[in-house]
Amino acid sequence: MIENTIAGLRIDRERLSRRLADLAAIGAIEGTEGSSRLALTDEDRDGRDLVVTWMRDLGLNISIDGIGNVIAAMPGDSSEAPVMTGSHIDTVRTGGRYDGNLGVLAGLEVIETVMGAGITLDRPLAVGFFTDEEGARFSPDMLGSLVYVGGMPLEEALEIEGIDGSRVGEELTRIGYAGGAPIPGLVPHAFVELHIEQGPVLEVEGITIGAVEGVQGISWKEVTVTGQSNHAGTTPMNLRKDPGFVAAACASFARELATDIGHPQVSTVGRIELVPNLVNVVPASATFTIDLRNTDEATLQDAEHRFATFLAETAGAEGCTFEVETLARFEPVVFDPAVVDLVADVAASQGHSVRRMPSGAGHDAQMMARICPTGMVFTPSKDGLSHNPAEYTAPDDLEAGANVLLHAMLRLATEGSNP
Amino acid sequence: MIENTIAGLRIDRERLSRRLADLAAIGAIEGTEGSSRLALTDEDRDGRDLVVTWMRDLGLNISIDGIGNVIAAMPGDSSEAPVMTGSHIDTVRTGGRYDGNLGVLAGLEVIETVMGAGITLDRPLAVGFFTDEEGARFSPDMLGSLVYVGGMPLEEALEIEGIDGSRVGEELTRIGYAGGAPIPGLVPHAFVELHIEQGPVLEVEGITIGAVEGVQGISWKEVTVTGQSNHAGTTPMNLRKDPGFVAAACASFARELATDIGHPQVSTVGRIELVPNLVNVVPASATFTIDLRNTDEATLQDAEHRFATFLAETAGAEGCTFEVETLARFEPVVFDPAVVDLVADVAASQGHSVRRMPSGAGHDAQMMARICPTGMVFTPSKDGLSHNPAEYTAPDDLEAGANVLLHAMLRLATEGSNP
Repeated sequence: MIENTIAGLRIDRERLSRRLADLAAIGAIEGTEGSSRLALTDEDRDGRDLVVTWMRDLGLNISIDGIGNVIAAMPGDSSEAPVMTGSHIDTVRTGGRYDGNLGVLAGLEVIETVMGAGITLDRPLAVGFFTDEEGARFSPDMLGSLVYVGGMPLEEALEIEGIDGSRVGEELTRIGYAGGAPIPGLVPHAFVELHIEQGPVLEVEGITIGAVEGVQGISWKEVTVTGQSNHAGTTPMNLRKDPGFVAAACASFARELATDIGHPQVSTVGRIELVPNLVNVVPASATFTIDLRNTDEATLQDAEHRFATFLAETAGAEGCTFEVETLARFEPVVFDPAVVDLVADVAASQGHSVRRMPSGAGHDAQMMARICPTGMVFTPSKDGLSHNPAEYTAPDDLEAGANVLLHAMLRLATEGSNP
Repeated sequence: MIENTIAGLRIDRERLSRRLADLAAIGAIEGTEGSSRLALTDEDRDGRDLVVTWMRDLGLNISIDGIGNVIAAMPGDSSEAPVMTGSHIDTVRTGGRYDGNLGVLAGLEVIETVMGAGITLDRPLAVGFFTDEEGARFSPDMLGSLVYVGGMPLEEALEIEGIDGSRVGEELTRIGYAGGAPIPGLVPHAFVELHIEQGPVLEVEGITIGAVEGVQGISWKEVTVTGQSNHAGTTPMNLRKDPGFVAAACASFARELATDIGHPQVSTVGRIELVPNLVNVVPASATFTIDLRNTDEATLQDAEHRFATFLAETAGAEGCTFEVETLARFEPVVFDPAVVDLVADVAASQGHSVRRMPSGAGHDAQMMARICPTGMVFTPSKDGLSHNPAEYTAPDDLEAGANVLLHAMLRLATEGSNP
């Protein structure tokens, strides 16, 4: 009978939607559904205050650490490590209402649902939000969870300077979120994060739930090619040293490379700048970026190598020189297979279509994966839109994702579960 | 004896160099050899005043027309149409000291040399400078010569608004160069213009004199491709609509096209702008320009057609839309074969290496070609540099070019010469 009650337990869809809307109203971008709450700004503080109020109203045990991460656990016996969920509530400058917020508020919803049902678990549940996941004000991104898992000393993080010249430590103190909880943080029994996909795969394939197997490795490089600026009318083709051509050839090759390696390799040349950028002048220089991602480190290294070889050969043949700067480099993260299986099982048992897939974007879960068994649940993103006020996930999908999170956490909180 | 005297006649190299330096001192760009005399500015007026003073000092008959073109003819019998030379003395914002100026001051030097030798010709010689050849302040370029040959009504030209909001007519009046000579202007017996090549061909091939056969046709288009902006990490390659890729593929194809068609076809993608131009975002749109030039109109049309086909196919395959705007389109100009032969003959007879070649840039001579037999003489440009304070032509080459101009004009001014 208790088992049936637990199996039939579902989150309150309206309550979740209302909280998403209430949080989105803070820093709301007029005329859109989106919000602007850059990390540690007044808007972020107001958003934090609202979420903390909801946590307090539920009687949760709240801890705030030195980088401003907020963790709220169910009251009661705390001798067992909690099953934790969470995400972030900071946004990019023109953010949507689901990115990050969904993971935090669905976690709160899971805890309220379990507490409301009067269910006693073998391990407590906890929900948290991590500081500066977006990295839109302070670099690097995923800063709070990085510090939480011991990946960066707190003192170093507090000294980071933002795009506006402010410092993390000063801003944390200013908004009242420089807490005293220990760093590195408590190691959970397991961590599961619910997030919108931020890509089009689930929507295009008509699938409701993504069981995330890991996070792609990321290689970002900025390439500057230097040639010889010349008159576009008077310089024969064989006498040109055209860095714009080298950039274009590399951007075309980037597509060929991804196609040749095949899924899940992606490659993007998202930025190109020519100097002087005039219709009738062979450019003096071209700067462009290359973004390569793969879930397999060896394949990602192969892609980097092939791209570097093509660049060197093409620039050399054109008589151009070049410099390469690494902007970012993260190895792929593999989530715990047992947690991934659990997410897929729970989704299927609730009648949802499910797809195992990598995450193309970075998430706090990838930091937590360093210290405990971790997985993620993805829900569809309309048109794959992300970091955009028009970001949208249908209410049915929000509900489905939160219920998968609920039952994944319930299973992990049951004695004997050891992912 | 007279024949020997004429054959041995040479310009005064020092006088020419001094005048080039004196004119370059007006609007001089500090720390460089270059000048800044945008059309109809105070600097242009001061440059004009200096050249007109030199014309007056020689006792030439000076006429100034309604668009500010200044033509100075040898004094005496004016019943025969003159053999004319000339160019322009306006510069781009950061110009060199040879572009335009050489053609005007070498023309003056030719006339002073002939007059100084006491030679009587069957036809008078004349030298002129045309208004706003560069088009850097008022569009279109070659404005003065266009109006001179009747290619644009004077009233229309006077109303043209510059990049600074000024008007041609008002500026002409302000600087005192709104003259009364008739427009269209006097039709010369022939027109020969000396100019620096503005490209690297002569220098690379070690040739002193270019006998210019015509001016390339020019096709400038601006292409805007629109796709779907997306997250570079979460959007699989097969679901992308990437306008940046379309732009890169088109820029690569532009090179392939020129190579395939072969010399003298040139193609340049000098401007590319991606929106939003971020490392991790598949662009929403890409705007780029394509500059195609050829001396043969049919081949140029073929190049345009092949490029348009590639653009349509590539954008279509990527699921992108596009728009094309024509920024400029000029058909090729063919100079008079007899004048071209004459320039080549004179150069060879003076012991210079000579090459028949097209002009990649536009010149006042191409306007004059509409009304009289026309040709041009090119001298080498170091490193092909042009529209740049570092523009340079060696004194020996300046002297060679001016002497070829001298004897080409002498031959054209001889009774019976009818190119």
